Parts: sequence; structure tokens; C-alpha cells
Amino acid sequence: MSPSTVPDIIVGRLPLYLRELSKMAEEGKEITSSQELGKRLGISSAQIRKDLSQFGEFGKQGTGYNITFLVMQLRIILKVEDVWDVVLVGAGDLGHAVVNYGGFTDRGFRLGLVYDDDPSKIGQMIGSYIVQDVHSSVDDIRARNIRIAMLAVPTADAQTVTDRLVEAGIRAILCYAPTSISVPEGVKVEYIDPVLHLQHMTYYLP
Amino acid sequence: MSPSTVPDIIVGRLPLYLRELSKMAEEGKEITSSQELGKRLGISSAQIRKDLSQFGEFGKQGTGYNITFLVMQLRIILKVEDVWDVVLVGAGDLGHAVVNYGGFTDRGFRLGLVYDDDPSKIGQMIGSYIVQDVHSSVDDIRARNIRIAMLAVPTADAQTVTDRLVEAGIRAILCYAPTSISVPEGVKVEYIDPVLHLQHMTYYLP
Repeated sequence: MSPSTVPDIIVGRLPLYLRELSKMAEEGKEITSSQELGKRLGISSAQIRKDLSQFGEFGKQGTGYNITFLVMQLRIILKVEDVWDVVLVGAGDLGHAVVNYGGFTDRGFRLGLVYDDDPSKIGQMIGSYIVQDVHSSVDDIRARNIRIAMLAVPTADAQTVTDRLVEAGIRAILCYAPTSISVPEGVKVEYIDPVLHLQHMTYYLP
Repeated sequence: MSPSTVPDIIVGRLPLYLRELSKMAEEGKEITSSQELGKRLGISSAQIRKDLSQFGEFGKQGTGYNITFLVMQLRIILKVEDVWDVVLVGAGDLGHAVVNYGGFTDRGFRLGLVYDDDPSKIGQMIGSYIVQDVHSSVDDIRARNIRIAMLAVPTADAQTVTDRLVEAGIRAILCYAPTSISVPEGVKVEYIDPVLHLQHMTYYLP
């Protein structure tokens, strides 16, 4: 299937499969099954087989999936076989946590630039990054041809910063602010809002 | 429909609807339509009508939805009409960001206790919370009958802490560590891992 015809909900599960398969590879496993993968993820094996079948034939009936091969295929499908530079806007506690997050390495992303608009933060170091003035971000991002941004700014600033990032050529935004942002057609947005997840779980609590 | 028969993917969209409708209410709007809500969220109006219809009849054909009423109904469905106490384990940068996150208020959650296992952090203040020793968490959580936890600990500690939380009676865990955790039947887990979202978006990038 072409990218546009696979349901987005299926695409959204692939990164979870990739993460778990990579973990299996780290554990030294070579072969797995949709049953085993499903058990580890709390997803039915039928769902996993159906999801993967949208993209090709990755395992043989009865012999399971070669983990290294499937990891490689998922990386290609998700376009993370190479490394994307990512910009972070917002150098508060959350920005610090994002910079120090250990999960980017080997998963297709590298933090390129860190921005803030607070004069007391600009010029300071976070890890190995110098916090840059967000007012210079449009030129920097264009010059480096960066397509992905993470937004860790207060809600009140989220839309203004978004508009600037879009102007700079950003085409995918991961928004940590607990608000919705408006973007033009062709720009993807995903939200990280802990309350969305908490409310999803309380539905099931007795 | 009973909670167990509505597809989980639909349940997962309700918090997003609730967030956007609450924002509309704050903007002073009284009535909305599935078209308007869909446009603001990037979801089709047909999908929104179909999702809401799983839970009842919330709008009249041609007159749209009363926002206050729909917000109230969604809060009841998601069981956030009252306030849940939540425990946070992990008092690093991410823990600080969670404590200082402004999005919990009025959305059904209140941070009750903050834990860490690092002697240099125990006893320190984060915002208005004193960081408690995680070794006392089982007794505390049981005594206060808390059901929900957020996990902001390093990957290496995630499973050990999870086991302790489950023993204490926690039934919903929001895991920020970039790893999968194992829980017994009946315990819900959701993950916050920025790379899962980034990889979801790169699929669509040219």
C-alpha cells in the first residue's frame, strides 16, 4: 500500500513494534512470533499480523519473524534508517528533560538546536547544547534544512512559536504544551499531554 | 455500550475531544458542531459523530452540541468529574517538569505524592512537594488508596518500581521511561515516549 492508504492508526502502532523488537534484539533474541510480540505489548497477535501485512510479507508461516530483518524493514517504512535533526524550543524543566532523554540515540533522531526566548536562558548550556535565541531560529532552521521540531514552551507561546517554525520549513511538530496548535495542510502535529493518557486509563478504572 | 465493548481507539480520542471542548468553553463559545470540532482537531466530522454516538445522543440534528453539556458528559464517561490523586515516582528533570506542568488542574487529577530513591533528592522540595523515599511508597499508597501513578524513572529502574506500585494497589501507570513494563491483568499502562510520536510523523515526511 502507498503511505496515504494505510490507516493512520496502524502507522501509529509501528513505532511501538519497532521499539519492542529492538529491545528483543538487544536481549539477544533472533526470532519472534506475532504471539510473543503481542503478549509483550498487550496487543492481539491477529492485530499485529494484520498491521504488518499492510506493508509486505515479513515472516514465514510457522517460523516466525527474523527480528533483525523486521527491525530494518520497520526503520525503512518509518523513514528512520537515517538520522533526522530535530529542533527543541523551550529550555525549561521539560526542555532539560528532553535534552537529557536517553531514548533518541539509534532510533532515528538527533537533537540539533535548542531555543528559548528568555534572556536569562539564552547562552546557557544544557548538556552539550548552548541555548539559542528563538528569534534567530527561522534563519538557522532554514539554513540547516531541519524538518522536525519539539515544542516545550508555555501554552500561551505555543501558537506564536508554531507559526515561526512553520515559516522556517518545519513539517512535523511534537507539542508538549497542553493545548492544540493550528498548522497549515501538510504539517503534522502530535501531542504529548499526560492528562490525555491519564483520562484514557481512568475510563477503565472501577 | 458498556465500557468493555467500545473500541479502545475510540475511548482514546475522548480526552482529545474533552480538551478541545473545554478550550472552546474558555473562549466563551456555547454551541459547536462536529464540523467545527473536527476542523480544530484534524479529525473528520463523521468520525466525531460516530465516536460520540457510542455513548449516547449528545446533540440535535441541525443545532449542534451544547459545549457545557458535552464537557460534563465526557467527564462522566471518562470518570474525571471528580479528582484522582496521582503518585509520581522520579524527581529528576522530568519529575520537575511533571510537578510544574500546568495541565492537571480542573482536568481530574491532583499530584499527591512524589518519590525518588536518591538520598540526595529525598527530603528536597519540588514546588510544594517534599520528595519522599520510594521505599515507603507501598505503605503510603495503600493508606491513601491511590490508584494512579506516573513513572519518571530511568529505564533500568522501571520494572522494579512498577512491581512495587502494583503491590501497593496502583491500577493505572503512565510510563515516561523509554521501555515496556510488564503488569498483571487489570492494570492499565500508557507510555509517553517522544520517539514513538516522532517516528509516527516521519512516516509521512517526504
